[in-house]
Amino acid sequence: MAIIVQKFGGTSVGSLERIENVAEQIIKTKQQGHQVVAVLSAMSGETNRLTELANKLDPNPSPRELDMLLASGEQVSIALLSIALIKRGFSAVSLLAHQIGLLTDNRFNKARILNVDNQRMLKELQQGHIVIVAGFQGNDNEGNITTLGRGGSDTSAVAIATALQAKECQIFTDVDGVYTTDPRLDENARKLPYVSFEEMLEMASSGAKVLQSRSVEFAGNHKMPLRVLSSFSEGDGTSITFEQQADKTHPVSAITSHKDEAMISASGVESGEKFRNKLFALLAKVDIEVDMLTQTAKDNDKINLSFTVHRNDYQQTLRIANSLTADFSIEQLCGNNKVVKISAIGNGMRSHSGVAAELFECLLDNKIDVYLVSAAEIKISVLVKESDLTSAVCFLHEKFQLNVTN
Amino acid sequence: MAIIVQKFGGTSVGSLERIENVAEQIIKTKQQGHQVVAVLSAMSGETNRLTELANKLDPNPSPRELDMLLASGEQVSIALLSIALIKRGFSAVSLLAHQIGLLTDNRFNKARILNVDNQRMLKELQQGHIVIVAGFQGNDNEGNITTLGRGGSDTSAVAIATALQAKECQIFTDVDGVYTTDPRLDENARKLPYVSFEEMLEMASSGAKVLQSRSVEFAGNHKMPLRVLSSFSEGDGTSITFEQQADKTHPVSAITSHKDEAMISASGVESGEKFRNKLFALLAKVDIEVDMLTQTAKDNDKINLSFTVHRNDYQQTLRIANSLTADFSIEQLCGNNKVVKISAIGNGMRSHSGVAAELFECLLDNKIDVYLVSAAEIKISVLVKESDLTSAVCFLHEKFQLNVTN
Repeated sequence: MAIIVQKFGGTSVGSLERIENVAEQIIKTKQQGHQVVAVLSAMSGETNRLTELANKLDPNPSPRELDMLLASGEQVSIALLSIALIKRGFSAVSLLAHQIGLLTDNRFNKARILNVDNQRMLKELQQGHIVIVAGFQGNDNEGNITTLGRGGSDTSAVAIATALQAKECQIFTDVDGVYTTDPRLDENARKLPYVSFEEMLEMASSGAKVLQSRSVEFAGNHKMPLRVLSSFSEGDGTSITFEQQADKTHPVSAITSHKDEAMISASGVESGEKFRNKLFALLAKVDIEVDMLTQTAKDNDKINLSFTVHRNDYQQTLRIANSLTADFSIEQLCGNNKVVKISAIGNGMRSHSGVAAELFECLLDNKIDVYLVSAAEIKISVLVKESDLTSAVCFLHEKFQLNVTN
Repeated sequence: MAIIVQKFGGTSVGSLERIENVAEQIIKTKQQGHQVVAVLSAMSGETNRLTELANKLDPNPSPRELDMLLASGEQVSIALLSIALIKRGFSAVSLLAHQIGLLTDNRFNKARILNVDNQRMLKELQQGHIVIVAGFQGNDNEGNITTLGRGGSDTSAVAIATALQAKECQIFTDVDGVYTTDPRLDENARKLPYVSFEEMLEMASSGAKVLQSRSVEFAGNHKMPLRVLSSFSEGDGTSITFEQQADKTHPVSAITSHKDEAMISASGVESGEKFRNKLFALLAKVDIEVDMLTQTAKDNDKINLSFTVHRNDYQQTLRIANSLTADFSIEQLCGNNKVVKISAIGNGMRSHSGVAAELFECLLDNKIDVYLVSAAEIKISVLVKESDLTSAVCFLHEKFQLNVTN
């Protein structure tokens, strides 16, 4: 009998009715002859409600105590699901992180999983029980409760699946799979039956919100097959695998977009390298991440530098850059926070040359200006005006024939 | 530095504002030079809310899973209190039952405490931390979460105080101490500065709702001084001690009443002993407790039997008794569920003879009928009509001069 790990997010367990639906889903899998371990988030809204309570007492609550508080959310959802399963005649047992020996480091609020002990879970499975585990939480080596940060339940599920050598880790969400692009932007978006880990990882880091990139990375590192499915509708979802599904007809598998971008440009900077290093060091100090980056030499050692940050960090980044203008000679410093990043992602890009050329040609033909470009092995990203978002996505989706199955 | 354990019930931590009041209370004790361990219940209403959620899924939810669910309530209150203390500049650490090694048996929903490990708490106290512990919950020897039943947080506090060899275990409630009688029944009720353990135990089992009798028993067995105080007002409350505070002027310390009584009487029963044994065995099987009991021989071996049960069990008890009338010859079987129990309790009764005579005389003078009597070493209880409740309490309170301090 193979072990299947199924993860249900907050929306999937957001009400008693939905918890009962999840129970039915699990029973279906169990009746197909599998051993099932379910990993749950807190009921939707609960983590926010608890965070608000804490913030009313202290806008910066103690990280350790906040984790103690938040971990109660999953405790409620796993107990309720277990009660629903037992009511239906199935033996189930809910388990907290410390009860399955899910060990993390002690970085409260954003802990990393160090180890998952499979003994207790295997014992329960061998006795025929459905095992329901609290996601999002762990224990440090002093027995303090930690949490993994928002979206951490996905990582819990993957780590648990890995520890149990599960056949598959199924992530149930409110979408029914991974799409060639965001269906809200392009109605021709098509559900992908499979994507590779590398593609999924690039997609997650480029705006696709289906899976948290940390969990995809974890699954990739541990060769744990993932599947994204809907809690609310039937279907096989999207399988995320290692098998190289060579797609001759589609060098590009998906077009993603990321809206919350902002660009800062400094042109004619003397001692440009020093300016850049100083600026990026200051940004790192306040946890501002630099995403896309281009640097060109102009003349006489003066350089032009453009980079993007998250739109929320735009004003602070501008202030920090401006604070350096006293020490550095800069011809112009300007920014634009009405920009978006569009990415074309595909394993097929390895073997298909000319994808970049096609992409630029398509954008040029449709009069879409490109401000910045960055490229990785299986991804090309361009920064364009926010007003060009939908048209850029649709033109590229059509250009690479993503509406057509191979 | 002495350790003080302070227990705060659900009403005391029922809102963020009240949690902040509790924080101030603890800080006051800490600033008096004590080490403080606080034991909390869930915020008032939370346990009921969670129980209702469970009941909507299953009217008889799995006891293990119900405990997993309910234990989340205390987790929330301890984390919030800890956050409030840290915000005020005091180091605090919240701990769950498994984190302090509070071991119980595995009778879910009504577990008994087997052991409390003091190591983690002592370590935290030595580091200057205020320790905040989740009451009501424990862990069985397989690591499953258990709960101690309603009012269990009092027992948690006493067990923790005992394990830490605390100077005193203070129970903060919504009343400011133990009274000579219920102030809602008699406005002359007077707060007692102290009561003995035996008196408190008899009072708890006779209707005084201030303390759960299990926790008083536990404290008595472990010689842990208790104090009942109000979370909402100043004052020294009532100390529950072992010192024999001989009260020359008051043979009786308190008059308690218990409303939820019902009486069943069988008269002219042939083979009365067999009938009684059979009946009580059947009642025990369905967890119905018999409280007061009188048995008198009539004539020709026929006996009269009267006893009381909780009013909620009245109909079921009558049904069970009636089911025996086929096998036993009984002249009359009747019941009355409009009766109440009034008790006079006092250590002084040991040395003062004639308390019973005074009590009966007082009731007779005031035309209050007595249906049943039971007496223990320091307690006399009488069963009277419900309509006589207030007058019986007030007449006895005055008779034994309980409104006058000695």
